[in-house]
Amino acid sequence: HKPSEMLSGSIQVQGTGGSECCLLRGDSWEAFVEHVVFETQACLGQLGTLEIHEILKINEDTRVHGLALQISENSFSNKVLNALKPEKDVDGLKHADIVVLGSPKPEEIPLSWIQPGTTVLNCSHDFLSGGRLSPLMCFPPSDLEISRAQTPKAVEVLAKEIGLLADEIEIYGKSKAKVRLSLLERLKDQADGKYVLVAGITPTPLGEGKSTVTVGLVQALTAHLNINSFACLRQPSQGPTFGVKGGAAGGGYAQVIPMEEFNLHLTGDIHAITAANNLLAAAIDTRILHENTQTDKALYNRLVPSVNGVREFSSIQLARLKKLGINKTDPNALTEEEIGKFARLNIDPSTITWQRVLDTNDRFLRKITIGQAPTEKGYSRQAQFDIAVASEIMAVLALTDSLVDMKERLGRMVVASDKNGQPVTAEDLGVTGALTVLMKDAIKPNLMQTLEGTPVFVHAGPFANIAHGNSSVLADKIALKLVGEEGFVVTEAGFGADIGMEKFFNIKCRASGLVPNAVVLVATVRALKMHGGGPGVSLLLPSSKHTFLKISLSLKTSLNEYRCKTTNVFITRTDTRAEIDLVCELAKRAGAFDAVPCYHWSIGGKGSVELARAVRDAANKGSRFRFLYDVQLPIVEKIRTIAQAVYGARDIELSPEAQSKIDRYTQQGFGNLPICMAKTHLSLSHQPDKKGVPRDFILPISDVRASIGAGFIYPLVGTMSTMPGLPTRPCFYDIDLDTETEQVKGLF
Amino acid sequence: HKPSEMLSGSIQVQGTGGSECCLLRGDSWEAFVEHVVFETQACLGQLGTLEIHEILKINEDTRVHGLALQISENSFSNKVLNALKPEKDVDGLKHADIVVLGSPKPEEIPLSWIQPGTTVLNCSHDFLSGGRLSPLMCFPPSDLEISRAQTPKAVEVLAKEIGLLADEIEIYGKSKAKVRLSLLERLKDQADGKYVLVAGITPTPLGEGKSTVTVGLVQALTAHLNINSFACLRQPSQGPTFGVKGGAAGGGYAQVIPMEEFNLHLTGDIHAITAANNLLAAAIDTRILHENTQTDKALYNRLVPSVNGVREFSSIQLARLKKLGINKTDPNALTEEEIGKFARLNIDPSTITWQRVLDTNDRFLRKITIGQAPTEKGYSRQAQFDIAVASEIMAVLALTDSLVDMKERLGRMVVASDKNGQPVTAEDLGVTGALTVLMKDAIKPNLMQTLEGTPVFVHAGPFANIAHGNSSVLADKIALKLVGEEGFVVTEAGFGADIGMEKFFNIKCRASGLVPNAVVLVATVRALKMHGGGPGVSLLLPSSKHTFLKISLSLKTSLNEYRCKTTNVFITRTDTRAEIDLVCELAKRAGAFDAVPCYHWSIGGKGSVELARAVRDAANKGSRFRFLYDVQLPIVEKIRTIAQAVYGARDIELSPEAQSKIDRYTQQGFGNLPICMAKTHLSLSHQPDKKGVPRDFILPISDVRASIGAGFIYPLVGTMSTMPGLPTRPCFYDIDLDTETEQVKGLF
Repeated sequence: HKPSEMLSGSIQVQGTGGSECCLLRGDSWEAFVEHVVFETQACLGQLGTLEIHEILKINEDTRVHGLALQISENSFSNKVLNALKPEKDVDGLKHADIVVLGSPKPEEIPLSWIQPGTTVLNCSHDFLSGGRLSPLMCFPPSDLEISRAQTPKAVEVLAKEIGLLADEIEIYGKSKAKVRLSLLERLKDQADGKYVLVAGITPTPLGEGKSTVTVGLVQALTAHLNINSFACLRQPSQGPTFGVKGGAAGGGYAQVIPMEEFNLHLTGDIHAITAANNLLAAAIDTRILHENTQTDKALYNRLVPSVNGVREFSSIQLARLKKLGINKTDPNALTEEEIGKFARLNIDPSTITWQRVLDTNDRFLRKITIGQAPTEKGYSRQAQFDIAVASEIMAVLALTDSLVDMKERLGRMVVASDKNGQPVTAEDLGVTGALTVLMKDAIKPNLMQTLEGTPVFVHAGPFANIAHGNSSVLADKIALKLVGEEGFVVTEAGFGADIGMEKFFNIKCRASGLVPNAVVLVATVRALKMHGGGPGVSLLLPSSKHTFLKISLSLKTSLNEYRCKTTNVFITRTDTRAEIDLVCELAKRAGAFDAVPCYHWSIGGKGSVELARAVRDAANKGSRFRFLYDVQLPIVEKIRTIAQAVYGARDIELSPEAQSKIDRYTQQGFGNLPICMAKTHLSLSHQPDKKGVPRDFILPISDVRASIGAGFIYPLVGTMSTMPGLPTRPCFYDIDLDTETEQVKGLF
Repeated sequence: HKPSEMLSGSIQVQGTGGSECCLLRGDSWEAFVEHVVFETQACLGQLGTLEIHEILKINEDTRVHGLALQISENSFSNKVLNALKPEKDVDGLKHADIVVLGSPKPEEIPLSWIQPGTTVLNCSHDFLSGGRLSPLMCFPPSDLEISRAQTPKAVEVLAKEIGLLADEIEIYGKSKAKVRLSLLERLKDQADGKYVLVAGITPTPLGEGKSTVTVGLVQALTAHLNINSFACLRQPSQGPTFGVKGGAAGGGYAQVIPMEEFNLHLTGDIHAITAANNLLAAAIDTRILHENTQTDKALYNRLVPSVNGVREFSSIQLARLKKLGINKTDPNALTEEEIGKFARLNIDPSTITWQRVLDTNDRFLRKITIGQAPTEKGYSRQAQFDIAVASEIMAVLALTDSLVDMKERLGRMVVASDKNGQPVTAEDLGVTGALTVLMKDAIKPNLMQTLEGTPVFVHAGPFANIAHGNSSVLADKIALKLVGEEGFVVTEAGFGADIGMEKFFNIKCRASGLVPNAVVLVATVRALKMHGGGPGVSLLLPSSKHTFLKISLSLKTSLNEYRCKTTNVFITRTDTRAEIDLVCELAKRAGAFDAVPCYHWSIGGKGSVELARAVRDAANKGSRFRFLYDVQLPIVEKIRTIAQAVYGARDIELSPEAQSKIDRYTQQGFGNLPICMAKTHLSLSHQPDKKGVPRDFILPISDVRASIGAGFIYPLVGTMSTMPGLPTRPCFYDIDLDTETEQVKGLF
């Protein structure tokens, strides 16, 4: 019964002989690990001869909280795996111990089973044949508990440490601040630091932990290698926090704190987007109503009223006149025809692509009929609400590089076509200025910190399918100035490398002009196994959502090279030390600059020092960055290039709808925008269940849409849900506020 | 051409003889008043013989920006008044001069015509008969310009000045902060200051400027009488800011700064309400869907899942069991019948009263059909969106006095009835904790300041018809501690005294336990005139939205007395000095403690010193406060009491719908809540066009609803619009951001 020792980056298991129990626990966890002695009478069959009916018994035994099996290859079948209830599978475990049956050698224990405070019962054959098990049960702290146990430094202290001037920050509460864009002007001659992207391999539905790696990496760089560094993360959508998802601030000892502030409201950026998005939506329908119920003259008189006897066009109306080719500035000089052209947008309601949004998982708003009150005089139509982060304004926020640019993008956003097929924009509706005013604070990146006090920008979180899934250009730019030439900025791309990284390169870097120095590709053994033909993640695989073992492949960036790296890394059945070594070896052989395991989840920055060194070395080697395609190519060619070079498709196939949209956008002058593929992230192909490296498939493009303000065309590969729902038992059942301490409970 | 002198509280006009022009301008305004020389060739007919066709000519003359007429009684007819275009009427003027025709004596010039920088052209008969006018045109600064010209003190400085400890504030940007409720515990032994309500007489549609009086009064108390004071204001709804309304931070030299922060987002409280409100709405529909598509057992297993082998009720579920009379804590011990009772809320969709909300003027959401996507399996229904401030959660926020109480109120909110007619609450849906978490920051009052640096709490802004229209209890309570026993807290009630003040007394004071020491009743001459039978406010009356002349009646509070005071004040045709004296005299004769004119709009606190003295004296006289009705009376009796004692109705008349709702609420145990009348604010009666003191009317109650969490029953008198729309030319056309200076333009 000797406690093992947890060292940075490695685990040693001692005392595994006979019927002994071995408690794996690092000393540094003692403060927060609550030990509970728990008795169980579970009688388990012995290794290798374990029968399905015994698993079924375990299913019903409420005293067994989870079961991880190490079984020989010949008993490894789906039938065995499927017998175990999902809730007994370690994948679903948060607060339970793991019983390791049999007597594996220490080096055979899957490292990913072991979490802070995990009880590993390493029992002999004899003991199991009929004896009783008295495991020690440990409750490792939840992410929220870890977050709460740390006292963040005051954000003004952090701001001073990273060199912000007093008038460059706007503090929000104790631990958040907005950073003003004026800083970019002050530091315009400062050379940028190194720019590192964290991307992931094609993930399992549980995610690969890119945020956690990002946070762990900056913690390692800053606290352990003494290199200035900054993490740039996406702001999570608040709606799903109350549904199935829980929080999203990293995890374990690599997270952004306070995690409840990160996950709820933050500084209101998404709320601002909601307000701006919906003002535009209201303007569209109201305009249609007013045009339908008023004569040209009445409309014109209301749009250009005589105020205090003076009748003049507002500047946004002068811009519209110019667009219409009417070179007049006196409202009284317009001909009747010109008045009609000016006053009527003639929006074709069937072409409206601008939807209302809410930051709530509200499935009943997926398809609705609006305008049914008598005051709307029968002009009802079908519409929908999307989740707020799916708004084009979120993509605009993420891609803009200044206030001027944001205003122009907001004005350019196309919301519908008119009855002649011409695009109608926010500018045409006269709402550009108001949208900009609503977004004037949202444009400033939000400063927070990691659990180890490293600076983090949390800014923008566009959808990774219908948008480009990357945090903001502005946060990256400001961070690159702040860290100095020798410093590092680590930014994260959503979904797998085929989506998030590809869009980072071809959309975000095109918008920002920045060139990444290195890419970290996160690959959990769990995902590698799944792609190797193992069963789905909800089954009994010895890996966990909360595994701290992640293989991070630090690569020099080269878009054409990355595909093989995400997929050639081979599959192993259990993630023992030997396995990890194998994965790293294979990754390097496949062209990775380096491949190292990380342990930031369980021990913070110290667990990612090896990764930090690799990243530092890779970034200093110089990069050979180039875009995958020329934006001047026809839309179809750009789509085909991505499908073939990135997804490995043989070709693409356009629906008639898609073809006609491509023709329309090209005719409207939007043909030279980059492409933002809306594709599942769960496979390189369009079919989520096609794991590994699908070959020879034809990628079907069902429709094509455009985000002109954000600046991309997005082809739809299948249907993308833009409004999540709530499950039967949403996580809000567990979320509560302690009214005494004012602390949040139940977020994870 | 001698500039006049502007003194505190009085205006003197000099040099009015002959054909002279007299520029009325206080020296203190010079800094921000932009003078523009403007030439006009307007030829105007002379006083008394002015013909309608001459007015029509002026209508079309773009060089005349506004016209105010002083005409003899025998030419004063609706025909003359209606001839002038509304936009030429001084009521609509903001940036224009006022041409005063004829040669009135100085004391006859309506004071309310005169604004900072107003050009008053006082021309002779001869001059007008054919001469040319060359008026000087001045642009008085807009509210936004005044706001911007002042540099607010840093909010941490303000916080220190008012005695807040460092850990009692949470700063939001440079000039806003949230104040933590822990302060109430620290200062629990501190005696409260004096508590003053600002209410208005039955207003015109343009409002009476209660916020402006409130701000002016605390500016006068603090800066000029040296008395600690605090203003407590409602947070305005953001949606209408982009429609027809403009900003709402007071006006002129009595406003809260920065006004754009006040009007946009603030610290996100309304956004938090939107999020909480809509999470509950989504939970209702999703629950109905899940109940309709699952068996009792499947539902139960999902609601009380086995997590890591343990199956237990969450605390919110235990509360539900208790409510159902099931005294069990083991999920496996429930009978089949109990499982059904527990798992099914059996919501009757036709009884759902909980609506979704948005802080956007979106008329197309007034009536909608939701749930039309195939994923919702046909469970579509009719629903609506309200403006966010109409959410019951806003009323809860305004009435709560602690975190514990807010959580209880949120849980108590009734969203529908079940199929047995029993109320279904947020608690039944399991969402209480999550709502509280979303509202945990919103509960903290927001500290801002007036133009003269006086502290202001801006907190909560419930609708004044379907809710009670008062700012938060918590802000008042905290402010009363902070000002000290000799200090003053001035809080404001929405709409006219018949609504806002009545609800302040009978709902807000009942919830808070606070007793007001004095009431200031704001009465503009404009409104007094309207109630006296003058034409509507859009016509040619010499009063302006931006008049700085307000008659404030400082009264000792006594609910039974206030009615006569709002209406007995007599009507005069022009608001000359003589008129004001008359109004004040009449008000005092009618029982007002004092009646004084105020000039805070044009000169800030200095202009309200007389009012501040009157308020100080009134408050020190002690009050005779009592509630209008006993909450234990039957609902009908309470409604009748308000209708008769406050509105002057002969009786009430209940629709069958109203009667059946009253019966249901009484049966459900909600009979002893106070009453919150949902009535027009434009008349004491239910008919907006019945001005003055309507008599002998029967108040029709069309329906009755309940806000159980907020804690009141609200009878509907007529239909209340809970979702405003956008006009043909919304004010967003004028709203813009200067991307160089980052300053907002066009808010007013």
